[in-house]
Amino acid sequence: MDTAGKVIKCKAAVAWEPNKPLVIEEIEVAPPQANEVRVKIVATSVCHSDLYHLYEGMHKDGFPVVLGHEAAGIVESVGPGVTEFTPGDKVIPLFLAQCRECHFCKSPKTNQCANGRTEAMSPVGSRLSCKGKKIYQFSGTSTFSEYTVVRQINLAKIHPDAPLDKVCLIGCGICTGYGSAVNTAKVEEGSSCAVFGLGAVGLAAVMGCKAAGAKRIIAVDTNPEKFDKAKIFGATDFVNPKDHSKPIHEVLMEMTNGEWTSPWSVWGTQQSALHSTVPAWGVSVIVGYTLIQKFSAQPGDLIPGRTWKGSLFGGFKGKDGVAEMVQRYMDKKIMVDEFITHNMGLDQIMEAVDLMRKAQCVRAVLKTSPQ
Amino acid sequence: MDTAGKVIKCKAAVAWEPNKPLVIEEIEVAPPQANEVRVKIVATSVCHSDLYHLYEGMHKDGFPVVLGHEAAGIVESVGPGVTEFTPGDKVIPLFLAQCRECHFCKSPKTNQCANGRTEAMSPVGSRLSCKGKKIYQFSGTSTFSEYTVVRQINLAKIHPDAPLDKVCLIGCGICTGYGSAVNTAKVEEGSSCAVFGLGAVGLAAVMGCKAAGAKRIIAVDTNPEKFDKAKIFGATDFVNPKDHSKPIHEVLMEMTNGEWTSPWSVWGTQQSALHSTVPAWGVSVIVGYTLIQKFSAQPGDLIPGRTWKGSLFGGFKGKDGVAEMVQRYMDKKIMVDEFITHNMGLDQIMEAVDLMRKAQCVRAVLKTSPQ
Repeated sequence: MDTAGKVIKCKAAVAWEPNKPLVIEEIEVAPPQANEVRVKIVATSVCHSDLYHLYEGMHKDGFPVVLGHEAAGIVESVGPGVTEFTPGDKVIPLFLAQCRECHFCKSPKTNQCANGRTEAMSPVGSRLSCKGKKIYQFSGTSTFSEYTVVRQINLAKIHPDAPLDKVCLIGCGICTGYGSAVNTAKVEEGSSCAVFGLGAVGLAAVMGCKAAGAKRIIAVDTNPEKFDKAKIFGATDFVNPKDHSKPIHEVLMEMTNGEWTSPWSVWGTQQSALHSTVPAWGVSVIVGYTLIQKFSAQPGDLIPGRTWKGSLFGGFKGKDGVAEMVQRYMDKKIMVDEFITHNMGLDQIMEAVDLMRKAQCVRAVLKTSPQ
Repeated sequence: MDTAGKVIKCKAAVAWEPNKPLVIEEIEVAPPQANEVRVKIVATSVCHSDLYHLYEGMHKDGFPVVLGHEAAGIVESVGPGVTEFTPGDKVIPLFLAQCRECHFCKSPKTNQCANGRTEAMSPVGSRLSCKGKKIYQFSGTSTFSEYTVVRQINLAKIHPDAPLDKVCLIGCGICTGYGSAVNTAKVEEGSSCAVFGLGAVGLAAVMGCKAAGAKRIIAVDTNPEKFDKAKIFGATDFVNPKDHSKPIHEVLMEMTNGEWTSPWSVWGTQQSALHSTVPAWGVSVIVGYTLIQKFSAQPGDLIPGRTWKGSLFGGFKGKDGVAEMVQRYMDKKIMVDEFITHNMGLDQIMEAVDLMRKAQCVRAVLKTSPQ
């Protein structure tokens, strides 16, 4: 491409400081350095983790920054040492790296990558600048931009026919929820499950429970408008905690006669989810990421046989999981389009952020560069 | 036996009220009713759960009571409907029942028994009385007595040659610790483990880690006198938190370079144990039972891949686990004698209780009735 080796000027949504609206700016994207890839972002969506950094994160020094980590695009150019990608490849940036060489990557027991955290959330690894200022890279990705530069270990090559304005969701929310059911909780055929919170991650967990053969999938949310959507993904029952005066775990225990295995828990309902599981073998998986809210329990909550786990990116290894899930979508084995409630342009990003904050969307997809 | 069908008068240690010394009294033990078995207790030991009920439990109404649940004895007589036991059988009472008929007992996923909790900790199921007063049964067992009556689902038949003054320890502490390693944490060959707290349960966990093939077993205790004992059971390293100014999980992380899998946690060190595990795949098992101390963590502690579990009776099903562990002892595959630091008579029970409270014994075995 004729832009290779040159600085690219393009549009991006810049977060200049915490708790302030993102601003569409012209930024400069330097060419990729060794083992880096410059990607034209075709579509990106907004995830709660972006909002967390903007509105709740403790990293007051992580600004200015280009947020965004759930996206898909096309390789524009590659730096020295890059062998896995060539210009034109369809790709999904990864906030969870996979170097394939560290002791974690070589183990089937984890999706962590020992080389994954280096330079993320720092200006060192960022090739973005604006008005002469270095712009922080977010989560190794920074996809609220027409172009970004990522390390090759933070990039997955995907099926060449994949529609980027759909599969961008596989870069975070869908893998996170789906995998928490099939990989982390290892939901068993015929089991009963509950999913707390019906955002994109929760809905993907519902889809994962169904794929794993759960016979009963109880969707829990305080917003009854989400229940129709949950049904599409496989929910069999719906519980609105606002309809009950007793604690939600008591409601669920009564509904299921204590027969179930695996509730998921998203954001601040961890104790309820744990207590909702059958003491003898219940598995509760925490998915929502926040450093703020502590959860607690008593030894007697776990000792009879409960398991409390966490799941990052649904237990999928970055490159392998994304490629596999895109293939499943192409094979029509998982739903993706159904998560998308809004389509917009990058200019409308604050509208998308507001929809997310008000829980009025599942996923808003922003077209950035034209495919 | 000539006592069958009659009330037996015998000695027992009665706890008349909380926080008061046990008193050796003559009690009356009624004949077993339907599906019950009267057992001559030959040897019993003192476990922390007994002390917990006496000194810390919230059940102020659970008195007067005969405590004790780690014991071995001989069947004296059986009630109607008992087919599994006959007089003369060597047995170990079970605080964890196994009815073999409920949906829990039929599942390989749990050692809970749906029929296990009925009437435990209540006077309803007790056949003991003293001075005209009904005496509460403790944990379905009440073994600080020359005779007791238990339900047949609360009793395991063991090898006829088993020495009762040794295998009594298999009734609680040894199974609890050993099983927490091999059954609950499923310690892998070549892994690194840490065990917090070197009482009988912790030492049994060390033994379990070794049996599972752990290459490194770090024993953690504030009492360095316990380390020689831990070495006998297989500990390879020793850490005394008092020797370090930094948090113990940092010490352990540095020692192991984050390579290990499975710390155990006993009593109040739950957070340390969790934080000591490698985030990518660490397993932390809570074994110590207390309703008082809450533990807490942040979602980010679990999300990278840690698992927090609890273990009751080491995940062993009551009857099956006890019979199997006694057999392993008879086959010289596990140590039991090495846990016993004191041998006494039932009259000396308060001496044994004091030794336990002051952490000056591992296990004190009290001979009750002569074998």
